[in-house]
Amino acid sequence: MKLLRVGPVGAERPAALDERGVLRDLSGLVPDVDGSLLADETALARIRQELAGGRLPVLDQAGLRIGPPLGGIGKIVCIGLNYRDHAEETGQAIPEEPLVFMKAPDTVVGPEDTVLIPRGSVRTDWEVELAVVIGRTARYLESTEQALGVIAGYTITHDVSEREFMLERGGQWDKGKNCETFNPLGPWLVTADEVPDPQRLGLRLRVNGALKQHGSTADQIFPVAEVVRYLSQFMVLRPGDVINTGTPAGVANGQPYPKPFLRPGDVVELEVDGLGRQRQEFKSA
Amino acid sequence: MKLLRVGPVGAERPAALDERGVLRDLSGLVPDVDGSLLADETALARIRQELAGGRLPVLDQAGLRIGPPLGGIGKIVCIGLNYRDHAEETGQAIPEEPLVFMKAPDTVVGPEDTVLIPRGSVRTDWEVELAVVIGRTARYLESTEQALGVIAGYTITHDVSEREFMLERGGQWDKGKNCETFNPLGPWLVTADEVPDPQRLGLRLRVNGALKQHGSTADQIFPVAEVVRYLSQFMVLRPGDVINTGTPAGVANGQPYPKPFLRPGDVVELEVDGLGRQRQEFKSA
Repeated sequence: MKLLRVGPVGAERPAALDERGVLRDLSGLVPDVDGSLLADETALARIRQELAGGRLPVLDQAGLRIGPPLGGIGKIVCIGLNYRDHAEETGQAIPEEPLVFMKAPDTVVGPEDTVLIPRGSVRTDWEVELAVVIGRTARYLESTEQALGVIAGYTITHDVSEREFMLERGGQWDKGKNCETFNPLGPWLVTADEVPDPQRLGLRLRVNGALKQHGSTADQIFPVAEVVRYLSQFMVLRPGDVINTGTPAGVANGQPYPKPFLRPGDVVELEVDGLGRQRQEFKSA
Repeated sequence: MKLLRVGPVGAERPAALDERGVLRDLSGLVPDVDGSLLADETALARIRQELAGGRLPVLDQAGLRIGPPLGGIGKIVCIGLNYRDHAEETGQAIPEEPLVFMKAPDTVVGPEDTVLIPRGSVRTDWEVELAVVIGRTARYLESTEQALGVIAGYTITHDVSEREFMLERGGQWDKGKNCETFNPLGPWLVTADEVPDPQRLGLRLRVNGALKQHGSTADQIFPVAEVVRYLSQFMVLRPGDVINTGTPAGVANGQPYPKPFLRPGDVVELEVDGLGRQRQEFKSA
């Protein structure tokens, strides 16, 4: 099932794509696509049934904004340096255990919304990633099998990063990860049953049409299930939480001088196999 | 004005202390103490007027749980090493600009709730701090005067920290800052008009009755207004966001071996001048 949210910023309505790719309105069935829905098997089964029956109202896609596919996000937990080639291009050691940082939910925008380059920024960078969306509360999971059981689905996440703020302005990465609009999410939340193997997904990112990142989740150092199991030892994961699972090689900061950091007018396009596409224009804040 | 939230976990009702310290029910006036209320001057004025008139229903405090004084928290932004004596006790350099990390809102509990020592933890530590609560949206503030204008009020925050998770498990501090129950908040949100100088507040923390931290916000390297101005250059601050402004010296990790990290059964009490007290018993997760 492909769940999404469409409409103006802050007033998105829940929707789904049916088997033929037709956009269907879910607002008569559920108030939102959020943690409450993802934790509610009955509501999800009802949506599935109504979609299959072809009874839900069709929405006209023309001119309709696609919002982030999840409302009421509780937290965004991010994994750093989770692809060997990306760790190498940054000149940092391969992590012995997952490296964890955070983005605040209010950094999230839709997959085609404008992204703002912060004032004073000269090193705004891209990062295509697979996002995991949590559907059940998880504490101290004992196995990767248990971990897979708490995953509601997957989507594309753009972990936009300001390298100077993150690395050269004192201490922790969060300072360069939480700028306004720095987390485009979507277009769809694809339920886990439609992603048989999250470790076989190709990821691609283009800047102004030129391919910059081209990786596969097969190359993650810590696979999705291990990331979820691991995180649950340190924090509670709850329905509606998101995990950004790391980016492969090819970011601007990993390239030779002059590094091609993003400038106003640049267009970034992201794809993950089976999860759709994002496209953002970058502008000055 | 002292705003608070009382009642069972997840079902707290808004309340206030009147001038005589009597607990008054606000649930007939407003749905919650949250960012929406703090941004609503009219609603705040109405509460003030009703409190002064003595017309609000009295709540019986006996047996009533005090919750965190703020619902719907958007994000918790934390400042590290913001007191010279604490930076020194940790053996780290005095920051040249504020060091920023994050706690997720779901770490927040009430000021007298149990705090859980994570499984596998041997270095759970205390940190008494002044919390700033934001009342207006802030982007790229130009002065500390502007920054003071977006502060709704203040409360006590306990930035509980697991030092091994934070410092020795790969990379970023967030891993040791986001364990379940790791952010007791409250008891009251004291509105900014009742805190004439946030840089003259004594902070004290006791473990099992013994004084461990005894500092003053006068010793903050980056004062509250500068912290707010600074953060607004890197992220949007919104009504209902919280800033943990750092802790003075005296944490367990700064003491000689064997360092007195917290164990099940320990009781921690926190005070900040004019903002009330917290008291937590620590238990095993």
